[in-house]
Parts: sequence; C-alpha cells; structure tokens
Amino acid sequence: MAAPIITFLSDFGHDDWFVGVVHGVLHAVCPEAAVVDITHAIPPGDVARGGFVLAAAAPDFPPGTVHLCVVDPGVGTDRRAVAVKARDQLFVGPDNGILEWAVSDPHAEIRSLTESRYFRSPMSRTFHGRDVFAPVAGHLARGEPIGCFGPVLSDPVRQPLPAPERREGELIGRVVFVDRFGNALTNVAEHDLSDGFPMVPEDRLEVVMLGRTIHGLSRSYGEAPMGTILALVGSSGRLEIAQVGGDASERLGLGEGDQIRVRAR
Amino acid sequence: MAAPIITFLSDFGHDDWFVGVVHGVLHAVCPEAAVVDITHAIPPGDVARGGFVLAAAAPDFPPGTVHLCVVDPGVGTDRRAVAVKARDQLFVGPDNGILEWAVSDPHAEIRSLTESRYFRSPMSRTFHGRDVFAPVAGHLARGEPIGCFGPVLSDPVRQPLPAPERREGELIGRVVFVDRFGNALTNVAEHDLSDGFPMVPEDRLEVVMLGRTIHGLSRSYGEAPMGTILALVGSSGRLEIAQVGGDASERLGLGEGDQIRVRAR
Amino acid sequence: MAAPIITFLSDFGHDDWFVGVVHGVLHAVCPEAAVVDITHAIPPGDVARGGFVLAAAAPDFPPGTVHLCVVDPGVGTDRRAVAVKARDQLFVGPDNGILEWAVSDPHAEIRSLTESRYFRSPMSRTFHGRDVFAPVAGHLARGEPIGCFGPVLSDPVRQPLPAPERREGELIGRVVFVDRFGNALTNVAEHDLSDGFPMVPEDRLEVVMLGRTIHGLSRSYGEAPMGTILALVGSSGRLEIAQVGGDASERLGLGEGDQIRVRAR
Repeated sequence: MAAPIITFLSDFGHDDWFVGVVHGVLHAVCPEAAVVDITHAIPPGDVARGGFVLAAAAPDFPPGTVHLCVVDPGVGTDRRAVAVKARDQLFVGPDNGILEWAVSDPHAEIRSLTESRYFRSPMSRTFHGRDVFAPVAGHLARGEPIGCFGPVLSDPVRQPLPAPERREGELIGRVVFVDRFGNALTNVAEHDLSDGFPMVPEDRLEVVMLGRTIHGLSRSYGEAPMGTILALVGSSGRLEIAQVGGDASERLGLGEGDQIRVRAR
Repeated sequence: MAAPIITFLSDFGHDDWFVGVVHGVLHAVCPEAAVVDITHAIPPGDVARGGFVLAAAAPDFPPGTVHLCVVDPGVGTDRRAVAVKARDQLFVGPDNGILEWAVSDPHAEIRSLTESRYFRSPMSRTFHGRDVFAPVAGHLARGEPIGCFGPVLSDPVRQPLPAPERREGELIGRVVFVDRFGNALTNVAEHDLSDGFPMVPEDRLEVVMLGRTIHGLSRSYGEAPMGTILALVGSSGRLEIAQVGGDASERLGLGEGDQIRVRAR
Repeated sequence: MAAPIITFLSDFGHDDWFVGVVHGVLHAVCPEAAVVDITHAIPPGDVARGGFVLAAAAPDFPPGTVHLCVVDPGVGTDRRAVAVKARDQLFVGPDNGILEWAVSDPHAEIRSLTESRYFRSPMSRTFHGRDVFAPVAGHLARGEPIGCFGPVLSDPVRQPLPAPERREGELIGRVVFVDRFGNALTNVAEHDLSDGFPMVPEDRLEVVMLGRTIHGLSRSYGEAPMGTILALVGSSGRLEIAQVGGDASERLGLGEGDQIRVRAR
C-alpha cells in the first residue's frame, strides 16, 4: 500500500512555530505519512477562504488522502470538531464551514470528535490544531476507522460558495479569488457554462466585467499577444480572467467581489 | 523504532536556495529522517528571537528529535559550533546563545564540534548551515553518539530571557513576541504566576498594560464578545494578551518591550 | 539504495494551492522520494532568475537528484517540455532556458517530453507543473530511463548568464542576485578571478563599485569590524559584496545590474 498523504491547510503563517509543531505531531503519530502543506497563508480566521482553497486543492490528491484543515477562530469555545469521510478522502477540522467541500458530498460520513483518548494530553484550549486535529489526522492516516473518533453528526455547519445567478440570458458571477499570477477566479464553474449555454461553442461566449467585453474563451494563458486580456476555464475548473504575460487583476483593478457576466453572442 | 525527526530553524528566509540545500544535505546523510521546518523567518542575525522560538517549539516534539538551529552572524569567525544533548532531545548550532533552551538544562551534555570528518568537504567559511551543522544533525539523527563529534564544552554562551521582576506585590513583565494572530506573548510563564500569586484564583488576577486593566485570566480566545481584550496563558505556557476575533497587538499598539504588570485584586 | 530526492523550484508562491498539489502528484507517483522545496518565490515568469537559482542550488545535491523546475510563462503554447540528464543529475521543466545549468553540460542528454502516457489525464492546458512535469519527475525518481519520455532534442533554448568582460586589465561584472542577507552576488565566478588574475594573491585584488574601492578579498562575513563592506567569494562560488553584520545592498544602494570592477593592485 502506498504511504498515506496528509495535507495541511491553515491560517498559521510561516513566521511562528505553529506549522512546525503540527508537523511534529503528525510525524510522531504516523511516521510513514508524507505531510504536504497546501498553504498557511489564509488570512487569520478567514474560514471561507480556507474552504475555497481546500475545494480547489483536494480533488488533485489521491483517494485516501487525509486533509487537515485548521482555520479555527472559535478554538476553545463550544464549536464542534469533526472528521469527515467523503469523496474517497478524509478531512479533519473545526465544524465551521471550512470543510464545505467534504460535507457537501451527499454520501459524506461526518463524525464529531469526542473520543479524547486520541487527543494530546494535556490538551490546551487555544491550540487544537496541535492537540486535537493533528493527532486525529495522524490516526486516520494510520488507518483507524472514522467511527472510532465519535458519534455521527448530521447537521454540519455549511458555507457554500454562492452560485452564479441566471438573469435575462446572462450568467452573473463574481470574482472569488485572485491567485499569485493575478488571475481572477470566479464562482462560475465549468458546468455552469455548459448548463447555462448548452450547445454554445466557447468562441461564441462573451465575458463582461468592469465595462470591458472579452470575446470567446481561450484555452491557455499564452495563446494571444502579450498583454491581451483573456477569459478561460483554468486548472481548477473555474472561469477566470487572465492577462497574457501579466497580472490581470492589477491591470484591470479587478478584485474579489467584482461582478462578471457571461452571455452568448 | 520510529523514524527520527530533524527540525530546522533559521534566518534564511524562503526566497533564496539556502533552506533547500540544507534539506538536501540532511536527506543525503539521513534518508530515513522526517525534516520539519520550524520557521526560517527569524530576522537576519537575531539570535535572541531564534532562541525564543526554539524554546517555544522544542517541547512539542518527541524525545530523540534533533533540532538544527542556524542563526549564525559569526559564521567563519572563531565562534564555536556545538551539539547538545538535553531534555531527551538533541540540538545543533552555533555557540551564540540560540541553544539557550538546551544548555539551560543542568544535565545538558555539550560538545564542541571539532571532528571535521563529519563536515562537508570542501567546507566553505560562509555557509556552515550546509557544511557543518546539517551534516552533524544528520549523523546525530542516524544515531551517532554525541561524544563522537568533539570534546565536552563547559562554558556555552548563555542568552536567558530576562525574568519578570517582583515589585510591590506586582509581577513586572514585558512583551517578548507578537505572533501571527497579534497575540502579545510575555516573559511571564505559567509558573511565574503560580509562584508569584499562590492560592490566588485566576479570576482574581489583574493584568495592566498601556493604562488598561484586564480583570481575570481567560481560558481561550473565544470566550467573550468579539473585540474583547483578554489575558490568558497560551499554548506555549506564557501569559499573553489577545483580542477575541482580532489582532490585540495592532489594536492596542502593543509591541515587543512593552511592560505588562500582574497583580491580585 | 538511498531514497531519491526530488527538488522543486517554481514561481508559484506559497499563498495558493499550486505547490501543495504538485507535492501530492510527486508523492502519488513516487512515494519513496523526499521532496525538497528550493524556493517558490521566483517572480512570476522570471525564467532567468529561476535558472540562476537552479544553478546555485543544484551542485549541492547528491548524484541522482531529480530537479523539477517550473517557471513556465508559455504553458499551453507550443513551447517544448524537456527532461535532461546532466552532471549526474536529472532535470525536468519547460524548454525556455530555466534548465541552462543542465543543458550547458556538453554531455547532457536532452529529451523532449512527448510520451503522454506519463502525463496526468485529463491534462489541463494551464497547469503543466501538475499535469506534465511533476508526473515525469516522479517517474524519473522511480528509475524510469530518460529515453522513455520522448526523442532526443538537440537545440534546447539557452539562457547563459552573461560572462564578465575583460577590459584594460580589469574584469567588468555585474550584480546578478541580492540574497536575503543583502549580499550582492555577481556574475564573476571564482574561476574568472583565477583565470583573469593568475598568480595574484587575494589581498592584492581590488573591487570597485559605485565609486567605492574594496581592498583585498575576505574569507568570511565576520572577519572585520561591524559595518565594514567586504568582497569575498561566497558559498556558491561567486564574488559577492557583503557588509559585516548588515545588509550591503541596502547600505550601498547596490542592486541587480550594477557594475562591479575587479583589478590587481
């Protein structure tokens, strides 16, 4: 059997020691695991952004991967802690919406983390990433069945990405993430385009934002002259606005929350 | 036996190739080790901060962990290089105070690194992280006894964190670290509170800083309304000032060196 | 046999999920590999800088290391993808000059990546780091012969660092990289000095930049009083300008492209 992969996503940053000690707990509990950092640059407490990044990253990992997700502003309060088995993978984190991608699977098995024998002892009230979530992730990676960690939880906190709206033949979406390269990712998924504009070829779609119209969808970032503004479906399956050889977001002043509209010519 | 863990703490940053090549040396010498980065964001040459972070992180790692610590402004001069066995763990770095947490153990065994057969050859005079400390850390992780690396050193450079002072019934401490979340950690440890105010329940303690008084200690970050300023003992065992759902340091203008006073009501 | 090392160098940054999913692919294809990040802070699309960092880092890794290098502004266009066997190591990346250090080896074996059975399926046109280069790097680390990935390519894109010029007894170079510590690395390599000034001892060399003259080369950063500006050959074998205990680049206003001249007294 392949060595298990544990991914780790948080808002801990890299300046302190928090990421390192969580890695230490994971290796101590499950030495054979490969631990992969997704990112630790989620802004402090930004659960929605954590959930977006998890949904973008998780599909690229193999079945059996354990995803440890810690954006946890409610640590030490009565917010619940959960493990989820969904989409052939496992997820561990606070029950605050960050695991939306997992719990939105209708076949998800969700367990409340109540079996404290798996926790670090003594357990702090301020660092459950180290004391609760990491040990549970490690034990899941070792093959402990999810049912061992606590009872079924049937009402997880949900935090779905708002869907694009359909209005007068147009699909109205929003920019939801600007990546390192200045590409502006939207809440319009590939299937929203095929559902919304069945039988319309990609070169007949138009994308309108900030008073500018892009004619047709491109297939890659480099297929037009330098500086051209493009719309395309990117590697995570979302409609995005990009600039050939540049930073579309900066160039256009396009940021999170800005509206984009898609229509057929 | 579990695979050994080697942690790595430095002021190298992540923009150049220095962290990567040190990882390469560690894997080459000890392929079975898991290498865990604590942080590489220590400001260049800030030995005291490196020592603080090591002391905060090391206790969370299992016995036998090897800690590689490289904040080394004196590289290439006659500063000594050491390996330390202390607190059931191993430590490697320059003898400049960064290993204070290790050498403050009265049972510490400290060795001067003089056995150059363990070093990389040819050895540079400017990158001992790669050429001296990493190879030694790798060999320690492989189980080489610490006595092999050189003679006992009895006068290590010390750099203790200043202790809080006792004055007129108050404990006078200082902010010594502001973390990613804006929590202001102080040099007042949990045992300073229990020693200084024996039999005083936590809700009868007061913390005063910048003309503001916090009544009682909290147990977690989220147990009061959003925006509340709290004092609590955090996950690394130090008194800290925090804000519910926010950044206490920014909100209060509270930074390193600022005084905090603790008293009983 | 030692576990293979795969290094990873890119312009992906650490804020998104791109680095993490590439690690996931590498572990899925070659679970026994140790994956080492060189840096992901190459400015977006800066192929020359990626190539410089690769050349600085690669020599420090053991034979057999696989270097995955993804600075790929032409992803999805007709730029070629290559694997290279050179200098006892293996290299994977776009054919855009980033692998200059590898292809400059006269014995390099360069293969065009055309065997799509090694690629991730379905393959995106926007993220070949995940879909093409990482799977190939993983298979190379597993021992797949380089000849399996495609035909020999004989005209790789080249991007050599400009050599220093010889003029009126002086060697004229430029600053090509400023590191974390403010050290200004130049395109003058150690062998340029020994070739250009044979039999001249290091204390008879002078380095002139921005109207300032440094007399003699130093051997380490700490061998003169605090604040002194030094010239020395650093750990990657290049002439660099440094300040004892400080940031030479900031202090002198010395940046990339600035000229430095070396002469004998």
